[in-house]
Amino acid sequence: MSLTLGAIVEALGGRLLGSSDMQMSGLAPLQTAQPSQISFLSQARYQSQLAPSLAGCVIVSPAFEAQVVQRTAAIITDDPYLYFARLTRLWKREHHKGTGPRIHPSAIIDPQAEIAADAVIGPLCVVERGAEVGAATVLKSRVTVGEDCKIGARCLLHSGVVIGADGFGFAPHQGHWEKIEQLGAVRIGNDVEIGANTCIDRGALDDTVIEDGVKLDNLIQIGHNVHVGRHTAMAGCVGVAGSARIGAHCTVGGGAVVLGHLSLADHVHISAASVVTRSILQPGHYTGMFPLDSNANWEKNAASLKQLSRLRERIKALEADIQNNKET
Amino acid sequence: MSLTLGAIVEALGGRLLGSSDMQMSGLAPLQTAQPSQISFLSQARYQSQLAPSLAGCVIVSPAFEAQVVQRTAAIITDDPYLYFARLTRLWKREHHKGTGPRIHPSAIIDPQAEIAADAVIGPLCVVERGAEVGAATVLKSRVTVGEDCKIGARCLLHSGVVIGADGFGFAPHQGHWEKIEQLGAVRIGNDVEIGANTCIDRGALDDTVIEDGVKLDNLIQIGHNVHVGRHTAMAGCVGVAGSARIGAHCTVGGGAVVLGHLSLADHVHISAASVVTRSILQPGHYTGMFPLDSNANWEKNAASLKQLSRLRERIKALEADIQNNKET
Amino acid sequence: MSLTLGAIVEALGGRLLGSSDMQMSGLAPLQTAQPSQISFLSQARYQSQLAPSLAGCVIVSPAFEAQVVQRTAAIITDDPYLYFARLTRLWKREHHKGTGPRIHPSAIIDPQAEIAADAVIGPLCVVERGAEVGAATVLKSRVTVGEDCKIGARCLLHSGVVIGADGFGFAPHQGHWEKIEQLGAVRIGNDVEIGANTCIDRGALDDTVIEDGVKLDNLIQIGHNVHVGRHTAMAGCVGVAGSARIGAHCTVGGGAVVLGHLSLADHVHISAASVVTRSILQPGHYTGMFPLDSNANWEKNAASLKQLSRLRERIKALEADIQNNKET
Repeated sequence: MSLTLGAIVEALGGRLLGSSDMQMSGLAPLQTAQPSQISFLSQARYQSQLAPSLAGCVIVSPAFEAQVVQRTAAIITDDPYLYFARLTRLWKREHHKGTGPRIHPSAIIDPQAEIAADAVIGPLCVVERGAEVGAATVLKSRVTVGEDCKIGARCLLHSGVVIGADGFGFAPHQGHWEKIEQLGAVRIGNDVEIGANTCIDRGALDDTVIEDGVKLDNLIQIGHNVHVGRHTAMAGCVGVAGSARIGAHCTVGGGAVVLGHLSLADHVHISAASVVTRSILQPGHYTGMFPLDSNANWEKNAASLKQLSRLRERIKALEADIQNNKET
Repeated sequence: MSLTLGAIVEALGGRLLGSSDMQMSGLAPLQTAQPSQISFLSQARYQSQLAPSLAGCVIVSPAFEAQVVQRTAAIITDDPYLYFARLTRLWKREHHKGTGPRIHPSAIIDPQAEIAADAVIGPLCVVERGAEVGAATVLKSRVTVGEDCKIGARCLLHSGVVIGADGFGFAPHQGHWEKIEQLGAVRIGNDVEIGANTCIDRGALDDTVIEDGVKLDNLIQIGHNVHVGRHTAMAGCVGVAGSARIGAHCTVGGGAVVLGHLSLADHVHISAASVVTRSILQPGHYTGMFPLDSNANWEKNAASLKQLSRLRERIKALEADIQNNKET
Repeated sequence: MSLTLGAIVEALGGRLLGSSDMQMSGLAPLQTAQPSQISFLSQARYQSQLAPSLAGCVIVSPAFEAQVVQRTAAIITDDPYLYFARLTRLWKREHHKGTGPRIHPSAIIDPQAEIAADAVIGPLCVVERGAEVGAATVLKSRVTVGEDCKIGARCLLHSGVVIGADGFGFAPHQGHWEKIEQLGAVRIGNDVEIGANTCIDRGALDDTVIEDGVKLDNLIQIGHNVHVGRHTAMAGCVGVAGSARIGAHCTVGGGAVVLGHLSLADHVHISAASVVTRSILQPGHYTGMFPLDSNANWEKNAASLKQLSRLRERIKALEADIQNNKET
């Protein structure tokens, strides 16, 4: 499969330096690209890779135009990374034209589920009674969409995703747990992507809600009645406990944990592996992780850490002592 | 679907204030309930939501009777949260009467597996040779129960659960790993619930054991030969390493890690995201997580943390200095 | 099923004390083994279990020969743990002779996928177009191998594994995320084992690579373009972010997180639940986890921790004060 530079610029815009008839056979990073491949420079710190790159065509911002005029071909655009993103989609689209059935015959779809006319349901998916899958949404293989759960348009759910398992709700009673049936569902907006084996639980009474444009990586757990605001993104292995309310345009780093019944404002950014134990009302960047060290150093510091509040008292006592000294 | 208040009280007990003929169409929280819905007040701190609630019927404890006598209807019971839990189950049961086949035709069940007469096996499940699934146990879609693994009665396994994958066992030999075949199985008691995509590995020689009444949330990893005692509950994303022995009536918060070959006594409670690195012989509440802070503050404190044992020595030196001063 | 000691020694070597006709019906730990079972002693610290064990045959190193000469039977070998590992494999092989179809009829295999003649594909697996599965490789139930992904020979992929879901790649644009199609694939070497529900994402342009002999436990997330070197092992719930490069012969403890675009040298060992935030160029053992404590102590120390850099300044001020005192 290949595309001409002319076809690329016609589809995506940008100013082409070089021949529009030139055929590109693929995309590659600057360092490994071959003369038949197209590459891009999105960050100034990688500019040293530009001159030696064998790429047949490079996508750069106007600031780098002088550095590419001698090359076979280049595309000048204001945001090369965005251009590259769109080029990957153009490539994928061309590559996949007309492949695969729309609803795989091995998928198990309840007659009372509603699948939009151009949605794609992959092999061995399960779509339960009352569920809805919106237009142009794709369920890859082995996805479960539980009873009454709604998925919007243009979503992409990767293999092994489970939407609408029961939330984790039990009432303690005489030393055992009595199940609270989870009578809510899950509502997912448009343009949402959900990574492999990620789970989003149904609400207890109300629904769990994922708003438009949210992007969730693999192996994420979203508890019941959580609300995730528009265009928020979470990296792999994040856990969000029940009834947490996460704002719009937030990012949550891999392996972070958000405890239940908390609120995060819009534009809050949580570092990887940090634990959110209280609501965050101000936008900003928040972190809490133990710094990595050699195991030997860590052992010493961790032991001292268990004495830290005592050390603080000893410092206070020293300060008082010295103050006394001065005064006498 | 709807239930009369009379039918509810007949099934679940409690003292009804109001008409037993009144039809309820659903359950909802106090703040969003409509006049056709039933709600509940389980914690005194939410009592301000009671008066303004539009709910047609509210479930409250005797202490709140005076506050509900003017309402259309109420149910008085000693433990409203427990009553609510049971009401959700009544609702679900009515809602699901007679739906779905008992064993979905797409499930792959080995002829040498044993499925109790009233167990339910969902679409695309796999039950291997020698496995047993007890009475009234439900496997939702896409659950795997491996060879020789036993699931008790009245269990609920959510989508994507894997019971009986191999434990992670290898003998190091000349720089590579030699596999130790995992010849044990998994034994799960009665009334156990297991969340979506959770994995419980088979034992190396003996079995991995999950006792009666245990509740596991989604995306939990239970290593080989772990033993989890009765009525213990674990939140999402917990990892329990091989041969750990966890007592009865414990709780483990989301994202916590329990290292291998440790013992936890009964009634031990581990906070979310904490790492259990040693056995815990006393009941109680244990925690170890880095407190969240603004990223800027965290950076300063994390840098100091790597000096902590040196700081401790400096405090000691200061104390000695001051002591010397006093003595001279 | 049973094996004679003669057959065992013929297959695996070692020096037999006792009758080669003796039948063994199974393997068990020293403490629970019965007279018809074979057991092993691999670590000197368990030697007190040797004398009282009822095991019919024990595998020990030459150092323990004097302690076993009076027993019914024993096998003397230099590395009893390795011998035990091989014995488990011999047992499994005998036990499973000729069971199950090679490619389960419920598996969905694209006609353009390539499955080696003696590979085993379990129930409800999905192998997409252009994927390759090497000789003697086993996919247990419900495994997905995505388009163009290659699995080497003698690999074992457990239930629910997802190979080749899209990497998590988006370009920010005017407050939303534009998808970067993931055009690379996943390449997995020989003798790799991958635990249940573990996910390995396809690369953005280049491939994600898992080298020979790597062992991954359950519920692990491997991001796009990660490179994992030969014979590295990772315990459950580890997350490795995109483009990280992990050396050969490393170990990563359960629940640890490796951030993106980092390099780890060969022979690096990361403790459980630690977060790798920078490249590690020297072999060694690295740790970063908050030590577990009673919740009450933790609360005091965690509060002080948020003051730690201020405490450090106060110590510095005290030192200056005392120095001044001395000089005056």
